[in-house]
Amino acid sequence: MFKINRLLGAVTLAAISLSASAIEWQALPAKAPEPANNPSTPAKVELGKMLYHDVRLSSNGVLSCNSCHNVMSGGEDNRSGSIGVRNQVGGRSAPTVWNSAFSSVQFWDGRAPSLEEQARGPVTNPVEMGMKSWDDVVARLKAMPEYKKAFAAAFGSEDSVSADNAVKAIAAYERTLITPNSAYDKYAKGDKTALNEQQIRGLNTFAEVGCVGCHSGPAFNGPQLPEGTGFYQKFPGQDNGALEAQFNFSQDLGRFEATKNETDKHFFKVPTLRNIALTAPYFHNGKVQNLEDAVRIMGKLQLNKDLSSEQITDIVAFLNGLTGEFPKIEMPRLPAYANKAFPTE
Amino acid sequence: MFKINRLLGAVTLAAISLSASAIEWQALPAKAPEPANNPSTPAKVELGKMLYHDVRLSSNGVLSCNSCHNVMSGGEDNRSGSIGVRNQVGGRSAPTVWNSAFSSVQFWDGRAPSLEEQARGPVTNPVEMGMKSWDDVVARLKAMPEYKKAFAAAFGSEDSVSADNAVKAIAAYERTLITPNSAYDKYAKGDKTALNEQQIRGLNTFAEVGCVGCHSGPAFNGPQLPEGTGFYQKFPGQDNGALEAQFNFSQDLGRFEATKNETDKHFFKVPTLRNIALTAPYFHNGKVQNLEDAVRIMGKLQLNKDLSSEQITDIVAFLNGLTGEFPKIEMPRLPAYANKAFPTE
Repeated sequence: MFKINRLLGAVTLAAISLSASAIEWQALPAKAPEPANNPSTPAKVELGKMLYHDVRLSSNGVLSCNSCHNVMSGGEDNRSGSIGVRNQVGGRSAPTVWNSAFSSVQFWDGRAPSLEEQARGPVTNPVEMGMKSWDDVVARLKAMPEYKKAFAAAFGSEDSVSADNAVKAIAAYERTLITPNSAYDKYAKGDKTALNEQQIRGLNTFAEVGCVGCHSGPAFNGPQLPEGTGFYQKFPGQDNGALEAQFNFSQDLGRFEATKNETDKHFFKVPTLRNIALTAPYFHNGKVQNLEDAVRIMGKLQLNKDLSSEQITDIVAFLNGLTGEFPKIEMPRLPAYANKAFPTE
Repeated sequence: MFKINRLLGAVTLAAISLSASAIEWQALPAKAPEPANNPSTPAKVELGKMLYHDVRLSSNGVLSCNSCHNVMSGGEDNRSGSIGVRNQVGGRSAPTVWNSAFSSVQFWDGRAPSLEEQARGPVTNPVEMGMKSWDDVVARLKAMPEYKKAFAAAFGSEDSVSADNAVKAIAAYERTLITPNSAYDKYAKGDKTALNEQQIRGLNTFAEVGCVGCHSGPAFNGPQLPEGTGFYQKFPGQDNGALEAQFNFSQDLGRFEATKNETDKHFFKVPTLRNIALTAPYFHNGKVQNLEDAVRIMGKLQLNKDLSSEQITDIVAFLNGLTGEFPKIEMPRLPAYANKAFPTE
């Protein structure tokens, strides 16, 4: 096992080169960790699923959590910036909800220390779901008797319809969104035929050139840390005028936007690589259209290496082996605003 | 049984008053009729479900059929006008997809003679899903190997990815979207306790005042007619300055917009009343916010009657008995544009 201290930053990373055999390749756990104050129950997960897919959580009654984090596909929207109410476009590419339970902080800048706090954000973000307040959301929910029942089933009483409980339920649902049994997982568990030759070459290259320095652990998003900790790296790790001109990576100050600490400028949460084949376009600003380019650019900016075409295609083949099995999910039935319209913009 | 000839129009309707006992109250069939050229198969339904829920059928990659016709709720979006790409708002309120298979034509103006032809429309409508052409849709679908396989399973070959087959599959899925076993259906099948006293009073009033003159048959959308026929009525059935000033019903020329026949001005398809409690706001322009007002206005404009408050609440109670059982639906897995972004606006 190894652990990168974020204070070491990008300079250290370029020096890291690990033999694949020295690494303990870890499979994705079947179950996500749960915080002590929000243990999952089937009733909570079911309520969370309703809320996650409910468009009444947006001001225009059109957008749900699922609009930008689509569980029918790779857990996001395959756009560089998501579309919020009134056709506003968000500034960062939506991260995948799949396996987000294995991230110790949420959002690209890590500003939410838990899935619960993450869920609280977009609903009242004026460029996302646009609700004026969570009070307005709660008022809508309380107008639907079936929601009162679902909250009662999850939290013990019909008076428990609240923002705090809504985000707890959503987080509980999200903790079920795990994609185990990828080809890589089978390989890590001992089936050495689960990855093909090219993929194994890619895995070795991924380790040797240093990708695994940051993209480590079972979710390939760094060491497993206590919820709220965060594992960040500077991106770009070094200046590159040509890539900057093309992709404007440095326009976004990253974690600095959340903390206003100078030392956080351009630091971003190391994202999971699970199901990365499904989540183009890439990077925080979604400016990179395909995975080959993403690997090449990461090699250059973070590892100061010009990866060869073969190295890149091998790594991409390996990364395709990180696409997991998606659980079957039954659509929720959304409660009715019976006999009347709900207030929309 | 009875049948209203649409040429008789509103004048005749006002004269119709039927005793509930004279009516053969029909339950919703468990299965929808299928056209000879598009028999349903499980593979076709599965493909149709994928396409129906796939945001890649819209230019910005955000909207699917389900965005405006939400099967997790009442089969539409509970808005007066749906929101299309670039925040454009449609001119008519989205009809429910639930039980649409029992309508002999589609759209408020009946311009599509089948579910297949309906499905063709919104995808390339510039104010709805905004695709430039179905060729563009087909190109996107062909770029996803799993879609080729799904089309092959449904239509026999991987070369069968086409607009015609896509709309056939979507229609096949829609023909599974049926909500049987409402309280009314149980009543119609002989369980006279399935509706409560008020609902039975409402059913009788519904018949006696003449609502059933148009809202007849198992789907309460008129007589069962061959696909493509259409059952239309003039709306408003008579002039009413005060209601017109408030709701602008006459602004929309209805079926005339599709046919350009003078005699079709202000004629609209008689919509189903199935699940009407879930589909506020009401009427073609979605200007009426609750079901009580909708019933009162229909009484005035179509039957020339001032329904009493008791009559209205009884009818509303009866209409609430038309909310059916919704089948459980597993979410589709949407194929990946593997390793690269798909082209969006």
